[in-house]
Amino acid sequence: MESVIEKRQRLLGAATLFYEQPVQIVRGKGVLLYDQTGKEYIDMYNNVPCVGHANPRVVEAMSTQMSTLNVHSRYLHEGILEYAERLLALHHDGIESAVFACSGTEASEVALIMARAATGGRGIICSDATYHGNSTEVIKMTLAGRANTSTDSAFRAIPYPQKLRPLISGLDDESLCQLYLDEVKAAIDDFKQQKIPFAGMFMCSIMANEGLPDIPGRFMALATDLVHAAGGLMIADEVQAGYCRSGEWWGYEKTGFQPDIVTMGKPMGNGMPLSAVVSSDANIAAFRERSRYFNTFASSPLQAATGIAVLDEIEQQGLRESSAAVGQYLRNELEDLVAGHDAIAEVRGCGLFAGIEWVNAAGEADAQGAARVSNLMKDKGFLLSNAGSQDNVIKLRPPLVFKQTHADRFLSAFQTMLKEY
Amino acid sequence: MESVIEKRQRLLGAATLFYEQPVQIVRGKGVLLYDQTGKEYIDMYNNVPCVGHANPRVVEAMSTQMSTLNVHSRYLHEGILEYAERLLALHHDGIESAVFACSGTEASEVALIMARAATGGRGIICSDATYHGNSTEVIKMTLAGRANTSTDSAFRAIPYPQKLRPLISGLDDESLCQLYLDEVKAAIDDFKQQKIPFAGMFMCSIMANEGLPDIPGRFMALATDLVHAAGGLMIADEVQAGYCRSGEWWGYEKTGFQPDIVTMGKPMGNGMPLSAVVSSDANIAAFRERSRYFNTFASSPLQAATGIAVLDEIEQQGLRESSAAVGQYLRNELEDLVAGHDAIAEVRGCGLFAGIEWVNAAGEADAQGAARVSNLMKDKGFLLSNAGSQDNVIKLRPPLVFKQTHADRFLSAFQTMLKEY
Repeated sequence: MESVIEKRQRLLGAATLFYEQPVQIVRGKGVLLYDQTGKEYIDMYNNVPCVGHANPRVVEAMSTQMSTLNVHSRYLHEGILEYAERLLALHHDGIESAVFACSGTEASEVALIMARAATGGRGIICSDATYHGNSTEVIKMTLAGRANTSTDSAFRAIPYPQKLRPLISGLDDESLCQLYLDEVKAAIDDFKQQKIPFAGMFMCSIMANEGLPDIPGRFMALATDLVHAAGGLMIADEVQAGYCRSGEWWGYEKTGFQPDIVTMGKPMGNGMPLSAVVSSDANIAAFRERSRYFNTFASSPLQAATGIAVLDEIEQQGLRESSAAVGQYLRNELEDLVAGHDAIAEVRGCGLFAGIEWVNAAGEADAQGAARVSNLMKDKGFLLSNAGSQDNVIKLRPPLVFKQTHADRFLSAFQTMLKEY
Repeated sequence: MESVIEKRQRLLGAATLFYEQPVQIVRGKGVLLYDQTGKEYIDMYNNVPCVGHANPRVVEAMSTQMSTLNVHSRYLHEGILEYAERLLALHHDGIESAVFACSGTEASEVALIMARAATGGRGIICSDATYHGNSTEVIKMTLAGRANTSTDSAFRAIPYPQKLRPLISGLDDESLCQLYLDEVKAAIDDFKQQKIPFAGMFMCSIMANEGLPDIPGRFMALATDLVHAAGGLMIADEVQAGYCRSGEWWGYEKTGFQPDIVTMGKPMGNGMPLSAVVSSDANIAAFRERSRYFNTFASSPLQAATGIAVLDEIEQQGLRESSAAVGQYLRNELEDLVAGHDAIAEVRGCGLFAGIEWVNAAGEADAQGAARVSNLMKDKGFLLSNAGSQDNVIKLRPPLVFKQTHADRFLSAFQTMLKEY
């Protein structure tokens, strides 16, 4: 008989799967997931179901709205206005107006088009280990970093700022920060020389795909100043960083800067496709004028009702505070637990987002080791993954409803795994 | 006090709205929509809620799935496999495997990347009045047609095939078809001369945005042959054309060709963001290899459950047959009704998709007149719009659950409107 994996290969082709022996998940509740045999897993990976798998308030909101009305946004509807108002109030004062979309990729597209429309420029600076989505234009940011031979001169990648493997060793924090700022300057100068008008800088506020590095000095704020001085806009990708993941509402609060354009996505709808871009009135107006943007499924009553339920749940359950506290507890305990373990160079992160840097005997990034940890922990009933610029960072990014009791269960299992490793 | 329109302007900027006096819709049921005053409208426009507004089966499926599990596709789940199998079985034999996404734009992106990966080419032929989505790359197809000064030489627009305002008047059907095929040939030759390797042709199967023209001869099939002979792939955009809209399951059945790649979107989830691209195993494999595509919200248990409920509803309610029969009735009655009316050059279409060509005294396209009809009919309780290459085509595209009784109510109101016009 055809196995589920074979059936998937036949119907979906070689779509990626997690783990050497993939799991088949059939049911979820809060931070728990269950496979087809009934085996329970603690979800240490999924940021999308931020208020918990099968959250009853979200289900009820979706169900009620779909039973009442769901239609496109060329008719008036108060739901999306209430949602936009709630969302904008969570940002700094320069953020005044919103564009809704369905995915992170779509949000990145909107942000790119907006930055270019508002500045009249084209040139975009990104990091050399980033991912902002998969459309033809957006993936150029990933390609610019990975290949160093971007096919499009309008994208230029800079080495992402970090302390663990810095461009030059032995510098103090401020000098190291300056080194990375010089890379931003060089990119801006390069655009000038190539006569590519500058549009801005596109960065994940906490550099999640880069591997959640400790960022030297006040890099993000000072880079924003450089971008502004050159007539560009600072775009913060909050698709992973936002929604209390970092312990603050937005990653940019954690890393200390005020972006001009913010993209949001993954956790917004607890799994219902929903993303958004927010910015100043002027930037949104420039975007609307350039593109006459319309998105069939976005700004809908369904998106609004679902999005509002998620905000309600975060606020009423105190999940920002919980993310900060439980995350801190998890990282503190982890640091104690891994102290002196040769395979672990560093535990880092913020809020409910931790990275464990896995290395070999020579202290080099060890992607295979990190993948092995993922597989071992999966067998023990904990779903996590590895990521980062060299795929050697164990990524812990559970739903925001992850509590200290879950952390304790994880820590105990992780300790056992380390002994067996 | 701030009106809803002012509030919307403040929070969303100049996002487009239908009608001179926009409607505020608060509730829907089947083909009926209701505004905040309780006024009832027959929905003659929305193809997205194909099985009816607030369809109970779809609501139940979404609600049950969200209460059970919704998670990304890097774990195994049988739902999306069942859905893919159902969907693929509705296409011709060359269609073997699927990629899911969230919006029509995302489906167009996947199709473009796929055609380019599978052929190694870049050059894409499109029509000069098309719209396949709004990302930076996909919108180039619209720009290639509108401006005739595309910024990207990889996109080349041809005049869309039509009988009403043909390139040359007085030709018989076959000769006119040949004239448009010559445009395809010229585009292919042009790519060759410019050393842009050819990737394929991207066309809405029924040319919905072009204004639903009567297509001369066997244009679509013969154009497909030309594309194949030049090593390209034929991409059918079924985002509007598909899902029984034309009276057949797919627009390409109506217009008589077999595409290599098919994009689908709008009606698939009855309003839940859901789109897909289907093709041969080989093309899907080329795509997966090129892009390592992953879409956080797509191929999810929620998309699967919702999509399956929509297919069940279409099949069990016989909506394909109903679309063909009610649509034919509507167009026949409309033709009788408008016969001899100077402002109407033609009633055309297929299935539950009708276009009424509005013209001025000189027989030229009259967009203002068409817009006026939209506004007048809205006041009478019928929601429709105008579209087409010159915005002068009254577009009737109701949910598939639109019945003859609804058609009769529309026809009566339309007749009254014509007297008052």
